[in-house]
Amino acid sequence: MSQLQRITINPSQLLETQLLLTPQQQHYLLRVLRLRDGDKFIAMDGIGKWWLAQLTGEQGQVLELLEVKTELPVSITLMVALPKGNGFDDVVRCCTELGVTCILPILSDRTLLNPSPQKLERWRRIAAEAAEQSERAFVPTILEPVTFSTAMSESLAEHRYICEARGDYPHLKNVISHTSSEIIIAIGPEGGWTEKELELAIDKGFQPISLGRRILRAVTAPVVALSLIAATCEV
Amino acid sequence: MSQLQRITINPSQLLETQLLLTPQQQHYLLRVLRLRDGDKFIAMDGIGKWWLAQLTGEQGQVLELLEVKTELPVSITLMVALPKGNGFDDVVRCCTELGVTCILPILSDRTLLNPSPQKLERWRRIAAEAAEQSERAFVPTILEPVTFSTAMSESLAEHRYICEARGDYPHLKNVISHTSSEIIIAIGPEGGWTEKELELAIDKGFQPISLGRRILRAVTAPVVALSLIAATCEV
Repeated sequence: MSQLQRITINPSQLLETQLLLTPQQQHYLLRVLRLRDGDKFIAMDGIGKWWLAQLTGEQGQVLELLEVKTELPVSITLMVALPKGNGFDDVVRCCTELGVTCILPILSDRTLLNPSPQKLERWRRIAAEAAEQSERAFVPTILEPVTFSTAMSESLAEHRYICEARGDYPHLKNVISHTSSEIIIAIGPEGGWTEKELELAIDKGFQPISLGRRILRAVTAPVVALSLIAATCEV
Repeated sequence: MSQLQRITINPSQLLETQLLLTPQQQHYLLRVLRLRDGDKFIAMDGIGKWWLAQLTGEQGQVLELLEVKTELPVSITLMVALPKGNGFDDVVRCCTELGVTCILPILSDRTLLNPSPQKLERWRRIAAEAAEQSERAFVPTILEPVTFSTAMSESLAEHRYICEARGDYPHLKNVISHTSSEIIIAIGPEGGWTEKELELAIDKGFQPISLGRRILRAVTAPVVALSLIAATCEV
């Protein structure tokens, strides 16, 4: 089982075995994920086809068509504020089972705990174990923690949501669509996002959403969000 | 916050302050929940109205109309096979946050651990804490563990589902409807239900459903099921 990042492509980007990357995809692979020449990644068309590809300069080279049965046809990035204690272990484990593609730990205003490199290693190990247990084809990527504003600035997916427990926002179930190819969802710490963070997110194109009328713990909310997204996108 | 069991009624069952219970409701309140004369319970019409009621003989007496904002307009009973270790704590906590009405621990063929009375007390305490934290109006009922066959025989709700990870069953998202008033969902232990258990459930009118293509742990599956039911039923 490989730990490869995935991107969603339009079939028109494929010219025989050449994969013409968009500037956004180049930014994502080279700058956000820091892939280098020769690194492999997954290209998927969002409706069931998967290819193993390799970065060649700033373009992609298709290596082979893959057979994938247990993966969602969508790329889901979970941005999640680091909770106190060991709560993040559960978030990584459950969200991996549910099909998350990438987890980006966030240093938010209310949780400024910068985790040790050992922690990051631990989360990656948990993700690998959970991917195997749940019979996934790929291990989700656990990125290095970044600040909230960095996370907001580097997010380029078309569908971006931020969960907010208080306030009168539409329910996630009413805004996600099964035709989405890339989804980013940001989930706050205990106590929620600060007003400033929420404003910045909205300014950066994130849509505030609700996960229901009850107040969920910071470790429950990601599992609920992933459950709803996975159920909507599963083909 | 009161720890009251709820039933769904048809408005035609209300005659001024008298609540005419159906034989099924009498069975449920008197035999399954073991309520006695004078005990209180909640009657709801499934579309937003809630009444505090009292058992008077075999009928109900309406005491007052309640204002409820954070509860689901549906009664959800989670039948869940007892997992090994402390996993049940998390199931109780997360499912309470998500709006479960009643949790029935099941002694299945693959988990014959009969929990101590201290455990039951512990789960009830967790449910009370989680209900308060999530700002619910009611604390879910945690029933005494029963065997799988007892659970199957006493289930009378119109909508009954049993989760099965393997096999080609419809996804829960495609079978639940927001018009349901009472839902029972049964979730198995690590390793799943035995073939015999699944057959008995189907025989008793339970519909087998899937929670997606990935294999979920026994402690994750109830949270996923509750997330989907809550999102569908939330008004």
